[in-house]
Amino acid sequence: MTNQIDVKIDIALIHHPVLGKQGEIIGSAITNLDLHDIARTGRTYGIGNYYIVTPYAEQQELVKEIMEHWQTGHGSRSNPARKEAFSIVKLASSLDDVVAETKKVYDVQPLIMTTSAHEQTGEINYQAAREKIAEAERTLLLFGTAHGLAPEIRKRADYALSAIAGITSYNHLSVRSAVAIICDRLIARNSA
Amino acid sequence: MTNQIDVKIDIALIHHPVLGKQGEIIGSAITNLDLHDIARTGRTYGIGNYYIVTPYAEQQELVKEIMEHWQTGHGSRSNPARKEAFSIVKLASSLDDVVAETKKVYDVQPLIMTTSAHEQTGEINYQAAREKIAEAERTLLLFGTAHGLAPEIRKRADYALSAIAGITSYNHLSVRSAVAIICDRLIARNSA
Repeated sequence: MTNQIDVKIDIALIHHPVLGKQGEIIGSAITNLDLHDIARTGRTYGIGNYYIVTPYAEQQELVKEIMEHWQTGHGSRSNPARKEAFSIVKLASSLDDVVAETKKVYDVQPLIMTTSAHEQTGEINYQAAREKIAEAERTLLLFGTAHGLAPEIRKRADYALSAIAGITSYNHLSVRSAVAIICDRLIARNSA
Repeated sequence: MTNQIDVKIDIALIHHPVLGKQGEIIGSAITNLDLHDIARTGRTYGIGNYYIVTPYAEQQELVKEIMEHWQTGHGSRSNPARKEAFSIVKLASSLDDVVAETKKVYDVQPLIMTTSAHEQTGEINYQAAREKIAEAERTLLLFGTAHGLAPEIRKRADYALSAIAGITSYNHLSVRSAVAIICDRLIARNSA
């Protein structure tokens, strides 16, 4: 086990309610590699908890099976580094459940920060976000699957983080890549 | 089609020769999501060409099928953004082939920069790498699959880029996440 650092940031990957292709409210399916890649990124950057948020019983069963395989099952013995990444993975039914869990475990109301591939009204940049996180007792970073977080999730945000600007106007990063870049911008001690 | 910018950097994802669990030389299998995620990241950051490097005929057939689906087949019509990402994806048999292609198309010998999850002798940091890239006519960034690039690939490097330091000592990012973070550190105009 490598050194344990909790940067007092949690991540939630929302599968419902999110937007579909036409902007309609949908629930998206679990993607196995979202669990792996984001757990590995989270563990690298000291994320305390990585919540997989889905209200669907069958999808929750799938998440539980994957978690069990890597946390206590065969995978945990064949790949200890992956076991360590999965140690931060949690399952939740809704954003409310994540917030309630945070209050229960840490006795704080988390600062909620949403992310998006698009411009948001009142968004803050990465430097400002680092300052807000430093002042907060605990921060919850929300990422959407499919075509992004639904308005009812967005309106829960204390702050909306500005979209990642690469160098082109193309803005279709995978959520796995977006989480990696955002963690690096918000948390890395030294990116020079 | 969003704006076309070529930052004069190409990426090659090496599937052979790479290291296995015990440090032995192996060839790794193609992972579908490596094509998608890294193409999307590459297109976001203005990468000119993203080479999938594998010497195995069957694996090359698989890559061709995926490329065709998204470049000209059904996927290209159902998802234009993905078609655009796949426009930078190329297939190559070896690093030599990638270098030869660069010489043929751009009439330059690319500066070769290797990446690793571990400390390298003579490595350079991200600030120095940005400067080397700015001075070079064209740069080729090499990423390894499995447990990293084989020594025979490493010794071809003009420069070895230092490993990504998150905030913990855990260094098991997926290659998809590592490419995203490294592109952001080397290319983003503004990460504040």
